[in-house]
Amino acid sequence: MRSIPVFDSIAAFREWRRDMLRQNKTVGFVPTMGALHEGHLGLVKTAKQECDAVVVSIFVNPAQFAPHEDLDQYPRTFDSDYASLVESKACSAILLPKISEMYPAGITLDRNQQRGAFVEVQGLSHQMEGIPRPHFFRGVATVVTKLFNIVQPERAYFGQKDAQQCVVIRAMIRDLLLPITMRAIPTAREADGMALSSRNRYLTPEMRKISTLLYKAITAAKEKVQNGASSRDEILEPAYKVIQQVKDEVQAQGAPFEIRLDYLSLVDVATLAEVETLEKDQAAVLSGAVYVGTTRLIDNVLINTNEL
Amino acid sequence: MRSIPVFDSIAAFREWRRDMLRQNKTVGFVPTMGALHEGHLGLVKTAKQECDAVVVSIFVNPAQFAPHEDLDQYPRTFDSDYASLVESKACSAILLPKISEMYPAGITLDRNQQRGAFVEVQGLSHQMEGIPRPHFFRGVATVVTKLFNIVQPERAYFGQKDAQQCVVIRAMIRDLLLPITMRAIPTAREADGMALSSRNRYLTPEMRKISTLLYKAITAAKEKVQNGASSRDEILEPAYKVIQQVKDEVQAQGAPFEIRLDYLSLVDVATLAEVETLEKDQAAVLSGAVYVGTTRLIDNVLINTNEL
Repeated sequence: MRSIPVFDSIAAFREWRRDMLRQNKTVGFVPTMGALHEGHLGLVKTAKQECDAVVVSIFVNPAQFAPHEDLDQYPRTFDSDYASLVESKACSAILLPKISEMYPAGITLDRNQQRGAFVEVQGLSHQMEGIPRPHFFRGVATVVTKLFNIVQPERAYFGQKDAQQCVVIRAMIRDLLLPITMRAIPTAREADGMALSSRNRYLTPEMRKISTLLYKAITAAKEKVQNGASSRDEILEPAYKVIQQVKDEVQAQGAPFEIRLDYLSLVDVATLAEVETLEKDQAAVLSGAVYVGTTRLIDNVLINTNEL
Repeated sequence: MRSIPVFDSIAAFREWRRDMLRQNKTVGFVPTMGALHEGHLGLVKTAKQECDAVVVSIFVNPAQFAPHEDLDQYPRTFDSDYASLVESKACSAILLPKISEMYPAGITLDRNQQRGAFVEVQGLSHQMEGIPRPHFFRGVATVVTKLFNIVQPERAYFGQKDAQQCVVIRAMIRDLLLPITMRAIPTAREADGMALSSRNRYLTPEMRKISTLLYKAITAAKEKVQNGASSRDEILEPAYKVIQQVKDEVQAQGAPFEIRLDYLSLVDVATLAEVETLEKDQAAVLSGAVYVGTTRLIDNVLINTNEL
């Protein structure tokens, strides 16, 4: 199996990128935080179908973690990430930048102490995932801007599982006039519907078994829409019911962990504003976040649209 | 005299830019708000010496004006700008983008109502010029990012007269990993020392005559440094004195306008932190802002360094 060049120096990567330009090759880009699963590999394979060369970055971005979050615990599995990328036969180069190069002004998790250039997408960053994580999308938009400026891809690939991230990045590309085509790829799922996520490895087998509750909940809500419901309460009612049922079961069984619903949300796909009454053909996102033990899971399904 | 292509469509400009790339030509970029004077033309000529092609953008950027500032009054003089650029023989293309293309999410001067992607350089944006104009550098960093993403220059040229802007943009280029070389060019001045500025045309001849006071003040302070002074108070003392003298004279003569000092500042060139005691060889910026009537003038001189 041939090997993939791994760049931990931005200058060396830029040389490789110039070479692609000289050869007139289009570049697709898949930014990741590593801990790769089939969801990531699906993005890489799609990119390879649409571009001559594919760059995968692996960078656990401090700026999108709050001090109390799991930055230190976030899984770092470079050897197996590398092996899966080789096996995928779809990755042309791996960018593995150093924190010191990515944040020349330094980076602290304390947002009030942060120095240097940051990118924020106003109007889309402080609802849904932005409520419990007010720092999150600023960190994401900033690191993606930096990575875009290094990789200079023709197309960039993101997983629909992070629905709000897709909407934020799409708006950022448009607003900052980046010459990049955004591609949001449908969420990869296990056979039982569970969305693939790097954080799934935090789950014990017992937790994993009931963790489909979120997908079941939003799927039940989506069925309500398909059956003609249009009011928010009516649509979300079966979703709340699914969560409550599983929560009660887990408790009744005396499981050593708890289920806690963080939120359920129904938003317009363009504005991310909560929808009270869904118009006919209005494109929307049904999403939610649930804690299983201390692990926070998110998922979403789309209404009246196929791509974010 | 040959003409210069003027692009008011970003897509059409990008075609021209691709052509330069195909021809392997390096591109220098001079972002302006129009109302061009010899200072701008100096930047354009320097760019032409260092690059194969030079792009000048003319865009009065709403995001860097506050609601009470002079956005509507800001001089728009395209015909004479165009003529000077033709005469300079140094400009290859003019980018004249529409507000609707530059701000796809729309733009309002009320910062709390602004939507879309914005860039902010933390730690350098809220001192000096950022005190009376807290919105200003966010507007500048955002529009320069957008323009960079359209023009994709090898080198970008800024006037040292906007000293803090130079420091902010240099940090932004570094932090966002933009593959662009920043060039800060010494301030162009009239024979009497007056720094060239588009806003000078707001001055009556009577005002213009005494408007050298700011340059005289900071030059007097710089002389103090050259004579060995190191404490802030000692260094700035002659500057305050010059301003006060001219202010008194203007008042004594019963002139129909007033002089008002906004601030004088002595900062470290890297951090823009105010200096209490200047170290030997510490690179610093001596700057200030003065109102002559309602026109706000700024100027600066460098200490222990030649380029910002």
